Amino acid sequence: MTNGADLLCDTLLENEVDVCFANPGTSEMHFVAALDRKQNMRCVLGLFEGVVTGAADGYARMSGKPAATLLHTGPGLANGLANMHNARRAFTPMVNVVGDHAAYHLPNDAPLTTDIESLAKPMSRFVRRIAGADDVSRATAEAISAARAAPGGVTTLILPADAAWTDVPDDSPISKASLRTPPPADPKRVDAAAKAVKSGAKPVLMLAGTALRDGPLKRAAAIAEATGARIIAQQSNGRVERGAGRVPVERVPYVIDVAMKFLEGTTHLILIGAKSPVTFFAYPGRPTTPLPEGCEVITLAENTDDLPGAIDQLAEALGVKPGAAPGIATAEIPGLHSGALTTAAIASAVANYLPEHAIICDESVTSGREFFGFTHGAAPHDHLQVTGGAIGGGIPLSAGAAIACPDRKVLNLQADGSGMYTNQALWTIAREKSDVCTVIFSNRRYAILQGELKNVGAGEPGLNAQRMLNLDDPFIDWVSLAKGMGVEAARAETAEQFNDLLKTAMSRKGPFLIEAIV
Amino acid sequence: MTNGADLLCDTLLENEVDVCFANPGTSEMHFVAALDRKQNMRCVLGLFEGVVTGAADGYARMSGKPAATLLHTGPGLANGLANMHNARRAFTPMVNVVGDHAAYHLPNDAPLTTDIESLAKPMSRFVRRIAGADDVSRATAEAISAARAAPGGVTTLILPADAAWTDVPDDSPISKASLRTPPPADPKRVDAAAKAVKSGAKPVLMLAGTALRDGPLKRAAAIAEATGARIIAQQSNGRVERGAGRVPVERVPYVIDVAMKFLEGTTHLILIGAKSPVTFFAYPGRPTTPLPEGCEVITLAENTDDLPGAIDQLAEALGVKPGAAPGIATAEIPGLHSGALTTAAIASAVANYLPEHAIICDESVTSGREFFGFTHGAAPHDHLQVTGGAIGGGIPLSAGAAIACPDRKVLNLQADGSGMYTNQALWTIAREKSDVCTVIFSNRRYAILQGELKNVGAGEPGLNAQRMLNLDDPFIDWVSLAKGMGVEAARAETAEQFNDLLKTAMSRKGPFLIEAIV
Repeated sequence: MTNGADLLCDTLLENEVDVCFANPGTSEMHFVAALDRKQNMRCVLGLFEGVVTGAADGYARMSGKPAATLLHTGPGLANGLANMHNARRAFTPMVNVVGDHAAYHLPNDAPLTTDIESLAKPMSRFVRRIAGADDVSRATAEAISAARAAPGGVTTLILPADAAWTDVPDDSPISKASLRTPPPADPKRVDAAAKAVKSGAKPVLMLAGTALRDGPLKRAAAIAEATGARIIAQQSNGRVERGAGRVPVERVPYVIDVAMKFLEGTTHLILIGAKSPVTFFAYPGRPTTPLPEGCEVITLAENTDDLPGAIDQLAEALGVKPGAAPGIATAEIPGLHSGALTTAAIASAVANYLPEHAIICDESVTSGREFFGFTHGAAPHDHLQVTGGAIGGGIPLSAGAAIACPDRKVLNLQADGSGMYTNQALWTIAREKSDVCTVIFSNRRYAILQGELKNVGAGEPGLNAQRMLNLDDPFIDWVSLAKGMGVEAARAETAEQFNDLLKTAMSRKGPFLIEAIV
Repeated sequence: MTNGADLLCDTLLENEVDVCFANPGTSEMHFVAALDRKQNMRCVLGLFEGVVTGAADGYARMSGKPAATLLHTGPGLANGLANMHNARRAFTPMVNVVGDHAAYHLPNDAPLTTDIESLAKPMSRFVRRIAGADDVSRATAEAISAARAAPGGVTTLILPADAAWTDVPDDSPISKASLRTPPPADPKRVDAAAKAVKSGAKPVLMLAGTALRDGPLKRAAAIAEATGARIIAQQSNGRVERGAGRVPVERVPYVIDVAMKFLEGTTHLILIGAKSPVTFFAYPGRPTTPLPEGCEVITLAENTDDLPGAIDQLAEALGVKPGAAPGIATAEIPGLHSGALTTAAIASAVANYLPEHAIICDESVTSGREFFGFTHGAAPHDHLQVTGGAIGGGIPLSAGAAIACPDRKVLNLQADGSGMYTNQALWTIAREKSDVCTVIFSNRRYAILQGELKNVGAGEPGLNAQRMLNLDDPFIDWVSLAKGMGVEAARAETAEQFNDLLKTAMSRKGPFLIEAIV
């Protein structure tokens, strides 16, 4: 017997989508039964849909291909939207399968009935309701095509229960996704960019997406070395390859004044898959971009283009030799701290103890703003950020990255307030016995908001403001919380304690959480 | 200095909205600063937006008036949608204030930019983007009017940051919400209903909304006694007044076969604010309503009508005297169990130990299906259900109900799988020192789904299905989890242990959690 649900699974597998992060409900039971029949599909349960979509994001950033998710009707999708938003901003390929009522049951307006399309559209580049069992395979292949089209994106397939449970012929055709190679940069743009690099007083190359991998970064560094141009990364990035032997690159800072200082004097900003920088928020009477006045913005490549290729095209136009190895200074590793457990102490410990080819999932928010400066010399690693500003991405990202790369250590640098959003992801890490070390920056407040309240000129916070910005009454005991979900954990209150715990955690396998009281 | 944010707070307060459940972000800092200036506004922090909206639901069900919520842009709203969905299905008044970027910053597509309207609409009866500081008060009053219009509903106000921070004259007019009294039932409908009660072989009155309060239930019981009609409640209800001295009423069961049996022989179904019953989900080849064929459905009153009044109208048409006291048998209280800790043992303990005027927030799912039968004789109490099928409503509901009724004991009957969705609400209960006892039905699986998988005919679950439906590897240690969020907790593995713990918890004040291993 083959039904629509089987055909959906087969189409996913045929197109190399073989991991499904899931939190099913009754309307998806035929899909669950079909997944149960597919030995090659790995199903990973999240105890909340924000875990499911955040893990799918982390998985795809590291594996380079989409995972499927399984979400239960409108409310299940709703719970997954915030991390779909982060994935959207990271241009992560993702195929969300949202179960819905049987088509003929929708007019009855049963309790779970919702306008799924309206919920899905803001976070998806592609939304499609499957028309019936014989539409399943075509629709699924279309979603995979859309998810994988450069630079990648979030897609949502709505699977009515009757499309899942209706039988199809055993030899129903399984559709193949059409995958297109991203085009090269427009030669006119290459000329314009080359001209700007040559003639500009202070040209800056701003990189994003696949341009931030080791190879293209080295080619960009060769251009920089040959021409005096500067290389920077956009503020939030899905994945950066960095560490010892790689090109040290700084991101545009979050705080507007710091960002303006960072970009001071820039005459030409050349975008390589990046978006011209804007402030994260607007502030009364302040500019909404940190770029200096008169700075010319030139797009070398859109993020739909072949970004590594565009860097090669620019190098060629500038006469920089393909093999030219840039002089990458080996950054120093800062010394270990003692005494107070500061964010600098944590960053220094990471620089010392990070194993080779680790994956850092960074949602450290205010605690991590200077992290890059401390860790340019750390062992080579991938650095993944929460890209859309929707908090609660970090722990799920780490859960998903570990599924993609079971042989690599995953280090999650996690702000406490944000971590609470999707703390359930710790359970998935425990369930999967993933090699993830979670470091909680326990400052027991929404530190970023306390800073912003000050900026508003509200003076000293009164009772209501304190009650909305402090997390210290009661404080969250992360060691107990982790234990509750099956993750071994310990607390560090001094730099020495943290150094010891991190050293141990980095040298052994399996889930571990360190609550760092900062 | 007065700005748009102040005016928003003042308009809320002027219209008796004086509790704000909140999880703010940077774009709402001027609103936070304004709330900080208002001594009469009580701000309650939730560490996740599902807590915020679920608590606002519980608060309004018990206080009879809306709370405000404060949510941070599209992703913050998205996180709150599932419990807004439950509130929508309970017809709960709610005023969600969603902060957004300053209007002039939206075209820059900063990371948090999203289509808030598209996200809000499926769960809101009213969505309005505030046009500027001088539109704040009018828009807020409109939202309150819409939230309070019978039977009540969820509304969403989008507050651009510049509308919040722009100054208004100190004497800006503060708008009043227009509140309309719900109309009586159409006399023609009253006649038709009376005729059905008199002539029908087996007429059934199905009640919902405010018809399920003590007074109207007694009036309906008088009709039943005089005419032989039967009274039932719809399947999911926002609030039922029940227990000793009140009318014992049963709900339409969840399981389709049980529901069909329950409604067997019904010739006339008379709806009093209720919706004609449909199945929660569709199943291949099964009916989508549990009503017997040929049953006539008559609407006495829409839920926008005055429901208690409609019952009086029907009583009058039937010649049932206004003062006629129905013979309400005092239901027996079942004996305490010993030995195995079953769901019956838990229900019996509740029947014995529940204090007077407690509030039960029930998200016990499969574990609570027979709860009503055991507790018709329990001390009089309010019973609140998760109404929309979006799991994760229970703990937040209890947090909000406790804010509305600080002098009443709140008992949260909570399934473990659903409780994990919004476990962060325990922290809010601890922070507010609320008199809430949380009972976790720890069956360590998605029991409802295991049943549904069986219904699908999938046979014994294999590896993938087990990995999606079991929560036992690792099991969740709720005692540690609660401790992590500042809530005292203990575990019960036998009926005796549970009886002791519940007795103690019911006789003292403050947050407590019992993990019941069932």
